[in-house]
Amino acid sequence: MPGHKENTGLFLGDALKYDVTEVDGLDNLHEAESVIRGSERFAAGLYKSEETHFLINGSTAGILSAVFASTVPGDEILIARNCHISVYNAAEQNRLKIRYIYPEISDKYGLCTCINAEDFAGMLKKYPGIKAAVITSPTYEGVCSDIRSIAKAAHECNVVLIVDAAHGAHFGFDEGFPSSAVSDGADIVINSVHKTLPAPTQTALIHINGPLADRERIRRMLRIYQSSSPSYLLMAGTDDCMSILNEQGKELFKRLRENLDGFEKRAKTLKHLKYLSPAVLCEECRAADADPCKITISTAGSGINGKELYDILRTKYHIQPEMASPGHCLLIVTIMDDRKTFEKIINALECIDEKLSEVKKDNDTAVRNLYAVKPKQVMQPYEAMSSMSIETDLGDAAGSVSADYLKIYPPGIPMIVPGERITREFTGILKNVRNAGFSVQGIGADNRIKVIR
Amino acid sequence: MPGHKENTGLFLGDALKYDVTEVDGLDNLHEAESVIRGSERFAAGLYKSEETHFLINGSTAGILSAVFASTVPGDEILIARNCHISVYNAAEQNRLKIRYIYPEISDKYGLCTCINAEDFAGMLKKYPGIKAAVITSPTYEGVCSDIRSIAKAAHECNVVLIVDAAHGAHFGFDEGFPSSAVSDGADIVINSVHKTLPAPTQTALIHINGPLADRERIRRMLRIYQSSSPSYLLMAGTDDCMSILNEQGKELFKRLRENLDGFEKRAKTLKHLKYLSPAVLCEECRAADADPCKITISTAGSGINGKELYDILRTKYHIQPEMASPGHCLLIVTIMDDRKTFEKIINALECIDEKLSEVKKDNDTAVRNLYAVKPKQVMQPYEAMSSMSIETDLGDAAGSVSADYLKIYPPGIPMIVPGERITREFTGILKNVRNAGFSVQGIGADNRIKVIR
Repeated sequence: MPGHKENTGLFLGDALKYDVTEVDGLDNLHEAESVIRGSERFAAGLYKSEETHFLINGSTAGILSAVFASTVPGDEILIARNCHISVYNAAEQNRLKIRYIYPEISDKYGLCTCINAEDFAGMLKKYPGIKAAVITSPTYEGVCSDIRSIAKAAHECNVVLIVDAAHGAHFGFDEGFPSSAVSDGADIVINSVHKTLPAPTQTALIHINGPLADRERIRRMLRIYQSSSPSYLLMAGTDDCMSILNEQGKELFKRLRENLDGFEKRAKTLKHLKYLSPAVLCEECRAADADPCKITISTAGSGINGKELYDILRTKYHIQPEMASPGHCLLIVTIMDDRKTFEKIINALECIDEKLSEVKKDNDTAVRNLYAVKPKQVMQPYEAMSSMSIETDLGDAAGSVSADYLKIYPPGIPMIVPGERITREFTGILKNVRNAGFSVQGIGADNRIKVIR
Repeated sequence: MPGHKENTGLFLGDALKYDVTEVDGLDNLHEAESVIRGSERFAAGLYKSEETHFLINGSTAGILSAVFASTVPGDEILIARNCHISVYNAAEQNRLKIRYIYPEISDKYGLCTCINAEDFAGMLKKYPGIKAAVITSPTYEGVCSDIRSIAKAAHECNVVLIVDAAHGAHFGFDEGFPSSAVSDGADIVINSVHKTLPAPTQTALIHINGPLADRERIRRMLRIYQSSSPSYLLMAGTDDCMSILNEQGKELFKRLRENLDGFEKRAKTLKHLKYLSPAVLCEECRAADADPCKITISTAGSGINGKELYDILRTKYHIQPEMASPGHCLLIVTIMDDRKTFEKIINALECIDEKLSEVKKDNDTAVRNLYAVKPKQVMQPYEAMSSMSIETDLGDAAGSVSADYLKIYPPGIPMIVPGERITREFTGILKNVRNAGFSVQGIGADNRIKVIR
């Protein structure tokens, strides 16, 4: 193995020479002792982490392993309600009792922002059975919570703090960017390398620190939930990325910072669109910190919605944004972007902004409410998923209990979770969101959804 | 995303241009509707399968998803004792009660061979609570069971038959090779594409057929246990492989068959080493069928053991064998190997054979017994893994109950499973195996193993 026998006629070309397997001298990801262990230790050094592992099944594998290693079936877990679906999947598969902590909401921009550290401490006091907590920081939009205070609160209650920092692999390397959750004291931190750094898709890192996390159990879960034939292309790609960070990081982050400064100066002058800079997110939206690499353009009151801005950027300006939500459009810039890219983006935004009329359409209802509803939890997700369900028309669903997750992808945050009561307010929001051009996963083509019988 | 922004200066070179993400037009593996769905349907057509999905977390993800989708915690499952560790992991994580079916053993060559269909039917009659069964066919050494009869027995008892055919992705395309488990009637079949076909490591397929498998549940498990940022490199690599099968398969399999015929003629004349051809495996070892792509060279009675042959091939002849076991050395050939490779292999084997002395060393003890012991099951693996354990010296372990898996990798088949009683006979075998140069996973550097307290 592998069966291609390094035949470089395939589309992967010369890269296929790196697609090797666990033969002598090439180590084994799942029992790393030599070259892979060395690469992981090098990564640990860069991230100032006591223990770091390469993930070849994405952050998903890190989330599953962290949750499964920190809980046993029946345990209570605290989950930030704006977590990625993989966190819900982990809790459901391990038959956990979920307690939610809701992020702060910016009504003005329709955004989930940070987890309040005092709320977090309050939840742990109120529910002393909680064994582990998962929060997302930074969010997709780059909003960071105060991990230092949250970790302190968790550790006072002997709770393992898992931080889904999938979008924060580039933190902690330069003063212009937020600190990393590792140095802020989280027990387990998961970074997608491919999202914000130069590495192939599906690569990630898990960092383990301090005395609370059960390291042996995490390592075991990683062996279970990741392929026993891990891709050396993905591992070498991660290692390559670590070398770039080490050798060129300083210079590349400096270039990025300068380009971001130039971008911000011009973006501030937009008249209809609003650039939610780190300063705006911190001052207006109570973020503890924010990532400047996430260029979030609010369309609130601009006359177009986030999806329309996304489509204009893509089709008219050949810029591929990362994501649209009803109230904003998000772009990601990284250390691999040069000045030309920034100019292309700001030129496009200025052109679009120029053409926007002063007449505002009302797109605020959907904007405000997308994740602001707090549905009533009737049963746990694992109970709901194993209950008998029927399909019903969305229009008739109010009053029923959902038997599925409903979410927009990206960001992949559930708007409703199995076992939660569907309200008329919620079906109204869904209608607005779909009218705004978003497809909601969990709703069939025939407008039907699954509810508990 | 991805953060590399197609910067081809990285080691992946131009291939990085294919490392894209779920933007418009590029579909989403987890909700495939357009291009990925088309590729999966094309693969389904090639394998004559009703439903086929690409796996980007290896066969491991397929095994986990198949087992989790076919059982609920507390269910009984029938597992062939020579299954890969991932099957045990799945059963343990889903808290299943495991019943074992033991493969036939060839004492002469120290090999696990096939699962007897009558034994299989007998187990299902004896334990009517069994919900699903997992068997490995072909084995690492290419030994096939009679899937047609086994599927018939399973379906008579409403049992979902899962076939781990990780090593059989190339079956069913040419008359010179065994039939595929899909056409033989298995409900769920998992193929590693990278093992025996030209595709990148970590790629696999899952085929679902017939009315017994819960398809919606399998799809859901695939979404849970595979990265939500699946690698397009891996998916495109799989798709590329399907095109090669479709366009050049006939010709490549013909070339392979001819080269194998030539190889077999010469290999038959080896005096000390013994080539376990498909005919030998079927006639002497009761295999239902066997894969000629697995070149298994038995060292029984040759004066050297499998590991020594492996090392000689590797260091003196620059041939990388796939695996060594105490009694044999295994090489894998695929449709990507040309005549020169076959000549290189047989020339090397002839040279080595020539030099082997007539004086035999006794390496038979380890050979005969490696997987022949049937340990007594004291508790279920999930119970053992959550019990208190202590470490003890291997020499003092006889009589204790294991709290871990002990295995050689490859093949990754556990010799002992958590919850099984360790006997003096077993520690004796372990000693032989380790003396023969094999490292056993689950034994610490200080010769200590974990047992139930």
